[in-house]
Amino acid sequence: MSSPLRLGIAGLGTVGVGLVRIIQRNADLLALRAGRPIEITAVCARSRTRNRGVDISGYAWEDDPVTLVRRDDVDLVVELMGGENGPAKALTEAAIAAGKDVVTANKALLAMHGLDLARAAEEAGVALRFEAAVAGGIPVIKALSEGLAGNRISCVKGVMNGTCNYILTRMEDAGLPYETVFEEANQLGYLEADPTLDVGGIDAAHKLTLLSAIAFGVQPDFDAITTTGIERISIEDIRAAADLRLRIKLLGVARLSGRGLEQSMSPCLVPADSPLGQLKGGTNMVVIEGDAIEQVILRGPGAGEGPTASAVIGDIIDIARGLRLPVFGQPVATLQPAVSARATAAKPWYLRMTLLDKPGALAKVAEALGNAGVSINRMRQYGHEDTRAPVVIITHKTTRDAIDHAASLALATGVLVGEPVAMAIEAD
Amino acid sequence: MSSPLRLGIAGLGTVGVGLVRIIQRNADLLALRAGRPIEITAVCARSRTRNRGVDISGYAWEDDPVTLVRRDDVDLVVELMGGENGPAKALTEAAIAAGKDVVTANKALLAMHGLDLARAAEEAGVALRFEAAVAGGIPVIKALSEGLAGNRISCVKGVMNGTCNYILTRMEDAGLPYETVFEEANQLGYLEADPTLDVGGIDAAHKLTLLSAIAFGVQPDFDAITTTGIERISIEDIRAAADLRLRIKLLGVARLSGRGLEQSMSPCLVPADSPLGQLKGGTNMVVIEGDAIEQVILRGPGAGEGPTASAVIGDIIDIARGLRLPVFGQPVATLQPAVSARATAAKPWYLRMTLLDKPGALAKVAEALGNAGVSINRMRQYGHEDTRAPVVIITHKTTRDAIDHAASLALATGVLVGEPVAMAIEAD
Repeated sequence: MSSPLRLGIAGLGTVGVGLVRIIQRNADLLALRAGRPIEITAVCARSRTRNRGVDISGYAWEDDPVTLVRRDDVDLVVELMGGENGPAKALTEAAIAAGKDVVTANKALLAMHGLDLARAAEEAGVALRFEAAVAGGIPVIKALSEGLAGNRISCVKGVMNGTCNYILTRMEDAGLPYETVFEEANQLGYLEADPTLDVGGIDAAHKLTLLSAIAFGVQPDFDAITTTGIERISIEDIRAAADLRLRIKLLGVARLSGRGLEQSMSPCLVPADSPLGQLKGGTNMVVIEGDAIEQVILRGPGAGEGPTASAVIGDIIDIARGLRLPVFGQPVATLQPAVSARATAAKPWYLRMTLLDKPGALAKVAEALGNAGVSINRMRQYGHEDTRAPVVIITHKTTRDAIDHAASLALATGVLVGEPVAMAIEAD
Repeated sequence: MSSPLRLGIAGLGTVGVGLVRIIQRNADLLALRAGRPIEITAVCARSRTRNRGVDISGYAWEDDPVTLVRRDDVDLVVELMGGENGPAKALTEAAIAAGKDVVTANKALLAMHGLDLARAAEEAGVALRFEAAVAGGIPVIKALSEGLAGNRISCVKGVMNGTCNYILTRMEDAGLPYETVFEEANQLGYLEADPTLDVGGIDAAHKLTLLSAIAFGVQPDFDAITTTGIERISIEDIRAAADLRLRIKLLGVARLSGRGLEQSMSPCLVPADSPLGQLKGGTNMVVIEGDAIEQVILRGPGAGEGPTASAVIGDIIDIARGLRLPVFGQPVATLQPAVSARATAAKPWYLRMTLLDKPGALAKVAEALGNAGVSINRMRQYGHEDTRAPVVIITHKTTRDAIDHAASLALATGVLVGEPVAMAIEAD
């Protein structure tokens, strides 16, 4: 058996502790599968004395992540600190500069600085792997960049933020408004320190940035994704969707068509009985479509100590076995700019508006839609007790541009209360 | 860019043609991702002149597979001939002996001779890869042996034969008896030349043999799997299952418990609204459970030109990139014998019996079950017009041994028409 692979772990939060646990518990199995022992030699975290429920006394302690990286007895650096800039970025750059392989779970770091880091890793000849950054324990980076590498990918879509999916399914199951469920999720510790990362769709868009880069051979570019959060989804939307046998999901869609690459992370409606529609709670799902494979669906836990650590250790075993891949599946120089194509694929759309309950209001809105070239497939006006009439419209297939235009024309009529809520309907 | 990886393809049936198409269509993409061009230099099949819809005139033709293997301009041999013995085995052995890497889609070959072939490959230092042998295009071998390699796997289960799943879902959707749908499937070309391979569960059990070897580090051993086909499933079973909000699937289950490794491929009942229960037609699904990952579900096309070729080219790209793994994920010498543990995990069971419609018949059967230690949870007797009364019993949790005992005692009462049909109910 070859020499051990020696790890330096930076960050001992949930995922770091999970990784330590796996390495301690499954040491024999890991050595068998990796062909060599996998050992932790040094760790680094904010507090040395905090009780984490795992014994780290056998590992060298470093206060400074960059010092950890430079230790001679560290072959591979595991970055589990998180954060787009600051210590995580400094550590990763230092590791690459020191010629050390890096495994990270940091989606923000890679979505924002992935191109530079990949270039540096390529030049230094080190591995930079990030399975745990996307969809928790689901081995989706591996599926896309290796198992399905022979395919010209046409679409990657899915539910990539378990917190948003928890909120949306809980709203439906319990009939509770967004604010109540948001507070619940907060108290359960499901939300990031800055909850906008979750409910604003940013965390999920970071993940889509990475999937898209691999799937389509484009430079990771967070700004090329049109991102909308779930903050404006009301219980009325949930109910109207259910009424139409649809469900609302914060759905990432990266789709290549003749018009270019459409990339969005936004609340969408999907059929209630589809695999995406049936996804409950914190579970994630990624749907991949390619010219040979047709469609593959991967489903699993999107977060949590065990699942995320499972993804981290998978990357570590790959490196122990000698696997060397380009960071985004092909050489950095061959990645194309991710042209920020405004979504122009025609889809049916859901529009919810609240109308002032006075004669002619509905006619004005219908006329506004018609003027924008949006035709109505189905419309429901719901019962109401005050002077505000909720109306839900399902359009025939149309573009996002036309919907935005229709919404602005509808607003201009002066008969709306608040702004319309618009969501695309994605066939599964 | 490095030198090309030169392929010799043996077998130009559906999958072989699919592979040629991918390599011709996506040559630039493959070279980018693999880091070197992937080229076909020679092919070999039964008929040189048959029109396959692809241009093979640029490749050398060999009549003899073994000659193909020995060509100096072939680095990697792709075995797509199929069959457990004969030319496929001879070719694979010859390739390994010649120090050539092998990619195969041949589940029967590996399920029956996998241990010897893996040992030979290991000694020769060549790769032997078989993603396409299991679950068509789903990258499940890769997920198990790489992405989830840090996990102690507790269970692998799933639907791995699209033809059986087509027959079962078609019976339910169209309300047609087994024989009619079997004939339909035959005319659609869905069945193997020897249909017992499909409907007898053998093809699916071959696949489970391979998954189990990787998941649990055991020697591939087809005989350790208890295999039952779908031939005895009647439209009455389909209807009774639907009535109970369950669906019948030919389900492979490999589960590790304190009692050992339970391995079976047999018709089982699963909740109708579960991911497995909702699987329609030829789609495959594999559910993997491990100590860190909790549960991951993979779903995709189980057969077909594109999907299967996608799996083959994935293996080829891995080899082009230099990935070298033990054939079953760990060294052959460390694989343990797959002890043929009789399934002893307690589950609820479904029992359908046809009773002679005379006084006391049901009491006798109930007594027989009680004597075998099997207690009844639910029972339904269905309306009937002749002298035969169909009865469906759902038991409390019990073992396969107890069910077999109960069935033999029930038969001995002399009040049954034909043998009871017994199926385990698998929670999802």
